[in-house]
Amino acid sequence: MPRRKEKSASTAPTGEGRFSYSGLDRIFHEKARLSIMTSLTAQQEQLSFGDLKMLCTLSDGNLSRHLAVLQEAGFVTVEKEGSGRGSSTHCSVTHTGRVAFLSYLCELEQVLADASAARETTSAQLRPGFSA
Amino acid sequence: MPRRKEKSASTAPTGEGRFSYSGLDRIFHEKARLSIMTSLTAQQEQLSFGDLKMLCTLSDGNLSRHLAVLQEAGFVTVEKEGSGRGSSTHCSVTHTGRVAFLSYLCELEQVLADASAARETTSAQLRPGFSA
Repeated sequence: MPRRKEKSASTAPTGEGRFSYSGLDRIFHEKARLSIMTSLTAQQEQLSFGDLKMLCTLSDGNLSRHLAVLQEAGFVTVEKEGSGRGSSTHCSVTHTGRVAFLSYLCELEQVLADASAARETTSAQLRPGFSA
Repeated sequence: MPRRKEKSASTAPTGEGRFSYSGLDRIFHEKARLSIMTSLTAQQEQLSFGDLKMLCTLSDGNLSRHLAVLQEAGFVTVEKEGSGRGSSTHCSVTHTGRVAFLSYLCELEQVLADASAARETTSAQLRPGFSA
């Protein structure tokens, strides 16, 4: 059976889905949640709700909302101790969360690797004396 | 005048907004638009609508929608040549778009740098024989 002729791509770049980045999990690829996950994983320990709020510059409502998304996915745990004015809330990343976030970071590295050539050209264009 | 006593942070991590990543422009920090921008900047030349669709694995509607957002921000140009069945659409990144995307990529590098220590620990935990 003759091999089916491939559709000619002429000058087109090859690689279907070459830049689709399917590994960029939408749960992590949101600015506030990326801040939360980086804070929690970088600290190597649990953080209080207040500290997390301060590190990520998020409002109470926004932090609660994004923590709930991460908690539902099994990526973080949120534990409340005590009650009333003396209560405190502590957040930490789960093992599943660490593993999934590691995978996300690998895909992010791929984005930067793909863009690196373009960055060099752009940087050269931004140097004083360059005329477009 | 005596210096006002700083609020004690005890075990709390310092650095308000340390992980807020304000440079992560929401226009670029969307999976499909990140794919489009990386495709266009990595190719160093204009791409046809069809090639872009193929590289990013996007539907006609999604690609159009995200290109419109980038076009409105002045980051890409979309030019249609001809009309009817013989028409073709070409997309390219503007100088403004390259500069802004470069800035976004710098912030993305910061995220990876912040997470690198955590990644090493996680990788160690994932090695066979590790017991949590």
